Amino acid sequence: MITTKNLLQDIPADLKNEVFEIIAASESVKVERIISKGQVSSEWYDQDQHEWVLVLQGSGELLFADGTSVRLGAGDYLNIPAHCKHKVSWTPPDEVTIWLAIFYS
Amino acid sequence: MITTKNLLQDIPADLKNEVFEIIAASESVKVERIISKGQVSSEWYDQDQHEWVLVLQGSGELLFADGTSVRLGAGDYLNIPAHCKHKVSWTPPDEVTIWLAIFYS
Repeated sequence: MITTKNLLQDIPADLKNEVFEIIAASESVKVERIISKGQVSSEWYDQDQHEWVLVLQGSGELLFADGTSVRLGAGDYLNIPAHCKHKVSWTPPDEVTIWLAIFYS
Repeated sequence: MITTKNLLQDIPADLKNEVFEIIAASESVKVERIISKGQVSSEWYDQDQHEWVLVLQGSGELLFADGTSVRLGAGDYLNIPAHCKHKVSWTPPDEVTIWLAIFYS
């Protein structure tokens, strides 16, 4: 039985904390929807897997350990190699940002 | 060097045929952007890998070998297990549909 869902719908009412939801997963890949509203990362992400990340709605800024940062809007994506330290340095506090992240080996 | 691109931009002018672009890939995963404008599949897809598929813009209909079909709009996604035969049975001829597909093991 094939069921569809929508990444832009079913947004939790309580967004005091970022919301992480696993959308699909296997041994080698994890697809996650992340919903932010003003949050930033408290520490660096240093991941064993590569991360491909897309902004579906809203916007956000990523900061890398070398000091560079990128601002992403709807449709923007990038690939973050494994162990490339990064953090979310800004998301707008007055709008909902929806990310799609693929963690893969 | 981290570079960003946008899935909703850089749409080829010539969409007589569907356009398939590999966005990210490794041994176990392939992320593809597919752009359709009225095309349908000429035959069944019968894939060794699972496919997670999302409509980013536009709409499309998928048909499965058991006769069921699903219509997808922006934000809609579904997971198609490996060897679950399916085809694209409709995309609108007058608008550009942008899909994101993740093939994974």
